[in-house]
Amino acid sequence: MKILLTGFEPFGGEEMNPSYEIIKRMPDTIEGCEIIKLELPTVFQESFIVLKEAMDLYQPDVVLSIGQAANRFGITVEKVAINLVDSKIPDNQGNQPRDMIIREDGETAYFSNIPVRAIVDNMKEAGIPADISYTAGTYVCNYILYQELYCCNHINKDMRAGFIHVPYATVQGAKKERMVPTMSMDDMKRALEVAIKTIINQ
Amino acid sequence: MKILLTGFEPFGGEEMNPSYEIIKRMPDTIEGCEIIKLELPTVFQESFIVLKEAMDLYQPDVVLSIGQAANRFGITVEKVAINLVDSKIPDNQGNQPRDMIIREDGETAYFSNIPVRAIVDNMKEAGIPADISYTAGTYVCNYILYQELYCCNHINKDMRAGFIHVPYATVQGAKKERMVPTMSMDDMKRALEVAIKTIINQ
Amino acid sequence: MKILLTGFEPFGGEEMNPSYEIIKRMPDTIEGCEIIKLELPTVFQESFIVLKEAMDLYQPDVVLSIGQAANRFGITVEKVAINLVDSKIPDNQGNQPRDMIIREDGETAYFSNIPVRAIVDNMKEAGIPADISYTAGTYVCNYILYQELYCCNHINKDMRAGFIHVPYATVQGAKKERMVPTMSMDDMKRALEVAIKTIINQ
Amino acid sequence: MKILLTGFEPFGGEEMNPSYEIIKRMPDTIEGCEIIKLELPTVFQESFIVLKEAMDLYQPDVVLSIGQAANRFGITVEKVAINLVDSKIPDNQGNQPRDMIIREDGETAYFSNIPVRAIVDNMKEAGIPADISYTAGTYVCNYILYQELYCCNHINKDMRAGFIHVPYATVQGAKKERMVPTMSMDDMKRALEVAIKTIINQ
Repeated sequence: MKILLTGFEPFGGEEMNPSYEIIKRMPDTIEGCEIIKLELPTVFQESFIVLKEAMDLYQPDVVLSIGQAANRFGITVEKVAINLVDSKIPDNQGNQPRDMIIREDGETAYFSNIPVRAIVDNMKEAGIPADISYTAGTYVCNYILYQELYCCNHINKDMRAGFIHVPYATVQGAKKERMVPTMSMDDMKRALEVAIKTIINQ
Repeated sequence: MKILLTGFEPFGGEEMNPSYEIIKRMPDTIEGCEIIKLELPTVFQESFIVLKEAMDLYQPDVVLSIGQAANRFGITVEKVAINLVDSKIPDNQGNQPRDMIIREDGETAYFSNIPVRAIVDNMKEAGIPADISYTAGTYVCNYILYQELYCCNHINKDMRAGFIHVPYATVQGAKKERMVPTMSMDDMKRALEVAIKTIINQ
Repeated sequence: MKILLTGFEPFGGEEMNPSYEIIKRMPDTIEGCEIIKLELPTVFQESFIVLKEAMDLYQPDVVLSIGQAANRFGITVEKVAINLVDSKIPDNQGNQPRDMIIREDGETAYFSNIPVRAIVDNMKEAGIPADISYTAGTYVCNYILYQELYCCNHINKDMRAGFIHVPYATVQGAKKERMVPTMSMDDMKRALEVAIKTIINQ
Repeated sequence: MKILLTGFEPFGGEEMNPSYEIIKRMPDTIEGCEIIKLELPTVFQESFIVLKEAMDLYQPDVVLSIGQAANRFGITVEKVAINLVDSKIPDNQGNQPRDMIIREDGETAYFSNIPVRAIVDNMKEAGIPADISYTAGTYVCNYILYQELYCCNHINKDMRAGFIHVPYATVQGAKKERMVPTMSMDDMKRALEVAIKTIINQ
């Protein structure tokens, strides 16, 4: 079994993005499953071009993407991606599409086909605040999950895909003028391990 | 130099209180300073009786109390205690005083005499979200800080006292139906070490 | 032109539900458009049975449903409904379906076909805090919007449907132990008028 | 009986400040009590110079000051003012004092001597979300309340003084990119009338 983990570059003025930081700290195999690591540009279109190349090259069984969602109190596992982009801030190449359909031939939405509820339950069992989220937003996170699930539904029908949002890392929060909700990267890393093991043992 | 660290028993239906958990994990000396550890009952009057005995016994140079404040995003170091108790929930013996003066002969308020701003700055430098708080509430936390500062101002004039609020521990948050802001106990423990070292090196 | 406005009964222990309160205060015609008013039970299945009867009887051009979402700071106009019910609290008949598909033959999601962004823009222009929401939750609100949009897409293809969430009414907030975000029912009523006029003049 | 009502100029980039807007809408007498209205500059020192002149001129029995506190969900009546200024943003003349004592000869804090709890209870009775606040912050609001209470305690010993914080007005919230907690100015105005009547009938 092969899992492709993707994280994002820093964006929105942040110096780091914990999504890829915790991926870097993953071992290369977990319970016999091969772990492939990929950092995506926080850019519409290009993020999917880079991801598609890796999907074609590695033929992963599962694509699990991680992103950052400021102001959430814990880990959120996304249930659904919608066929819509509407960015309130520019991406890392200055694109800011508003009210844009992602795929003319795509469905309005796709449910994630990883075991969302089991992942959340196992994270909580492991002492990590977690919940299901029913919106991945309308920025690059929802965009990439939608593209992944489009592929699962129309191209690579044996593939599964999911998306996990992490809050600000504690160390990011320490640099802000006003306090924000945070989580330690150690706990984020543990949460990611729980998610991977839940997917492997599904 | 001797520092008396106090934490509280669990209250409000929680199974644990990170305030004393992180104190238990402290070494017995830090930079040559003796660390004394005390768990206080979350009870008006009795908490101070227990504390007063320890103060008389150990004659600490500094009393540093830790408590839990749900719904704060990071560590908060209290600047001031007011001569007022008004509890929205009962304490651990069922007392729920409303609009009650703590000390008839006390001042309206006392400022903490530990280096509040330096502690906050050093915590942030160490990667931990922190801020000064200008209200310790009107429950047992404010009560005990007020009693300590009354002692500093009227009885043990060489003593210093301060109060640090920690948020929910990550592991507490994992048990809640809805997610709440949390911090890992490792980070809380590091924050407490930073506070102690800042006080020692003042 | 005929618009069917629906609100919900009180639920979750509340004594009132501003969603139907503001509908009751609407005139019977707005700019020549007939306004039909309907209170729905806050009950899965039954809410749609009651709504379907009214849709069959009145043949409205637009169904505009209003519901309450605690803890939102202003009016939110829902962009999408998903084919999923997962209720954290029982409905008014004690049903609490978890992870349940609404329509086996329905799509994963439908976008609302009222002018969501124009409504939000016009509300803000009128001085009312408003935003687009990309999740209507997984309770009766999302359920009824999904059913409406299923009808628009598969049965009554000339019909349009949308959903507007209002926060707690100011008067509801005044009864709570801890303060919550609220909006005055006068402002909610104005917001609803703005939404109706935007739909009429689309 | 004479009540001097004070509000503040807009500050922090806002175009209006509801604190003086609602004062302007007050009648000149309420239940036989004379109402005097004064707009204060949002400037340390100068705000008190302007207020002191009005106090000397009108000899009010009560000074009731109103200010704006973003991000509170309802009306808050301040219980206490502390002898400290620490401004995170510049005032309207560019002053930004940090960690500054207001009165060298003043006490650490003064409790407000208007009937804080009765005002909150009566506001809630009137359907307006309200609570007691135990911190007026460390900006111009706390500064002016401290100065007023210093006068009550040391100069005009028959005078009473209090401070009420209002949230963003609904119309202010409508101009923001992200929604914030708001209250309608009609409800704020009603809340102020309740406060005045409670003070008169104390």
